[in-house]
Amino acid sequence: MTDETQAREELIDLAAQFYDQFAAGQVPELRLPTRTKSNIEYDPESGVWKYGDRTSTRSANSVRGARKLLKAAYTIEFLADQLAEDRSSTLRELYYLSESWDNTEAQFGDQDESNDLVEDLEVVTGVTREDFHMRPEESGATLMGPLLLREQTRRGEREIHCQEDVGEGGYQIPNNPDMIEFLDHDIDFALAVETGGMRDRLIENGFDEAYNCLVTHLKGQPARATRRITKRIHDELGVPIVVFADGDPWSYRIYGSVAYGSIKSAHLSEYLATPQAQFIGIQPADIVEYDLPADPLSDSDINALESELDDPRFQTDYWEEQIELQLEIGKKSEQQSLAARGLDFVTDTYLPERLGEMGVL
Amino acid sequence: MTDETQAREELIDLAAQFYDQFAAGQVPELRLPTRTKSNIEYDPESGVWKYGDRTSTRSANSVRGARKLLKAAYTIEFLADQLAEDRSSTLRELYYLSESWDNTEAQFGDQDESNDLVEDLEVVTGVTREDFHMRPEESGATLMGPLLLREQTRRGEREIHCQEDVGEGGYQIPNNPDMIEFLDHDIDFALAVETGGMRDRLIENGFDEAYNCLVTHLKGQPARATRRITKRIHDELGVPIVVFADGDPWSYRIYGSVAYGSIKSAHLSEYLATPQAQFIGIQPADIVEYDLPADPLSDSDINALESELDDPRFQTDYWEEQIELQLEIGKKSEQQSLAARGLDFVTDTYLPERLGEMGVL
Repeated sequence: MTDETQAREELIDLAAQFYDQFAAGQVPELRLPTRTKSNIEYDPESGVWKYGDRTSTRSANSVRGARKLLKAAYTIEFLADQLAEDRSSTLRELYYLSESWDNTEAQFGDQDESNDLVEDLEVVTGVTREDFHMRPEESGATLMGPLLLREQTRRGEREIHCQEDVGEGGYQIPNNPDMIEFLDHDIDFALAVETGGMRDRLIENGFDEAYNCLVTHLKGQPARATRRITKRIHDELGVPIVVFADGDPWSYRIYGSVAYGSIKSAHLSEYLATPQAQFIGIQPADIVEYDLPADPLSDSDINALESELDDPRFQTDYWEEQIELQLEIGKKSEQQSLAARGLDFVTDTYLPERLGEMGVL
Repeated sequence: MTDETQAREELIDLAAQFYDQFAAGQVPELRLPTRTKSNIEYDPESGVWKYGDRTSTRSANSVRGARKLLKAAYTIEFLADQLAEDRSSTLRELYYLSESWDNTEAQFGDQDESNDLVEDLEVVTGVTREDFHMRPEESGATLMGPLLLREQTRRGEREIHCQEDVGEGGYQIPNNPDMIEFLDHDIDFALAVETGGMRDRLIENGFDEAYNCLVTHLKGQPARATRRITKRIHDELGVPIVVFADGDPWSYRIYGSVAYGSIKSAHLSEYLATPQAQFIGIQPADIVEYDLPADPLSDSDINALESELDDPRFQTDYWEEQIELQLEIGKKSEQQSLAARGLDFVTDTYLPERLGEMGVL
């Protein structure tokens, strides 16, 4: 059974559930885990966020509730048709498309409403948005490194080696990275890099070739597709994942989103999060040790660091030590500040030293 | 003579000029076009911004001026070495790297200072930043369409067909698109698309194949690399360039930056701007004609539209009519709002109709 067929069946089962409820003379309803902060817990064992036992019910026993189920039924039909035709769409297109539905009561008032409904459908069916063929708006990572893959495109299969068959821009992963199959690789570890400037530095210096490293470019806060491919690289190829970002609280959140996922998408943790991912830097300790050019922390930096100290994802000895050190020195540094020691310092000295300390090399 | 050799010679000539001034007992100085709004004019004939006749002088006759020339001399040395070694760096790396210079007086106080200096060097040498091997921070466009190209990479040449040899993400252009040579193509026109959601819609619907169209993804406000490749596609392949963006004043600016360039980078107009580029939509007239879902204009939208009416780049009958219509209807629409007429409406109806009207098809 293909993923499309399965996703479609899950959706139709859900619609059938409404039908059965009607047939049995019951008011139709939809039950799903409560998605509030109080019902979501960080599970230290698996290292990801999970829902607790509490559930909420969307019932047609009010006009508002009935309208929600009506919209769900129309959306299920749209998604089931989309899967049957092997097509896809964006969340924004779904919102606009609802204007073409014959029943105006089923149309969405704003995009938050359609986004939330698709998230509800993800939670209740256990199928991800990608498997409904909903495309994200933003493009995912580029890859460069010793990896041969096969992408299933609408125009047939493409076999691409992510060093030999691509330009210096690398391989642009598709919106649904599950269309990729890994065929062969020579990767010792994958380095997920925050900024384009640093990504290009590593490629220019040949770091991917010298260290059998797959360089993925996070492009700031990583898209779902980027987090998904990172998880697959870790799980399927069995290689360590290392996150290389700026040395400030916003970049620690980037690391957190790769490693632990977010509260909002706890139902996707097992699909998107890579709890084994390690943070290489810029660490506050590096700012001191390598005497990096730094800027003073702003008030919002300090607030963000303090809220990270309260965040269960960062409640480890390592992060507490680093964050407290950063509050003490009152400084932050960007990854490109390593250039103050010369353009090769990052690839000749910093990364090899840190990878050694971390046990990756 | 390679581009590198020529760029390096221009830089060294500039340093030699300082040397000669010293040797002749003169206070060294650097003369360059004044880069204020009053010395920059829109040239309707070539369709781009150009500098007027006024010049300013950076002279070493003050401590401040002398320090500027010192920084210029250090930067020239760095760039000349970089070119000799066939390496490259980002503007941000240059700023940080200055911390390693032996003379602390030559170090930059902030990145604006180093950015401005590189811009001065571009203006005075007539060499672009890319030819100094300064890489941008942000990645440029992806391409998808019937184009075979050869990219010169540090790892050798790569021949890539932008439909057959790439995944659905397309071909990621390198930071310096002048490393690309066009080998063969079957392109009737190039469509530069603002949003990722619409870019993916066109690819999914096979628009590039059905219409021999090269789809370039602008990713919002286009990077220099994107504007450069767009100009090269127009000039070298002789194909029309069509910009497809949202129907709001910010997207008209995206069109303006592709077509006319910006005041700030008037010295680059001939390198980056494509005055022949046409705007396909979303036009205010389309909002009316196709009855598209729309949002009311905000105050800042209205201000932006009014300032466009005063902008010489938009002082054509076409733009005056469209902008006045938009102010009258008080609405804006996104390109994805076309989905309200169905997912194929954009490729089956809207684009073919508009391309016909514009004389492209």
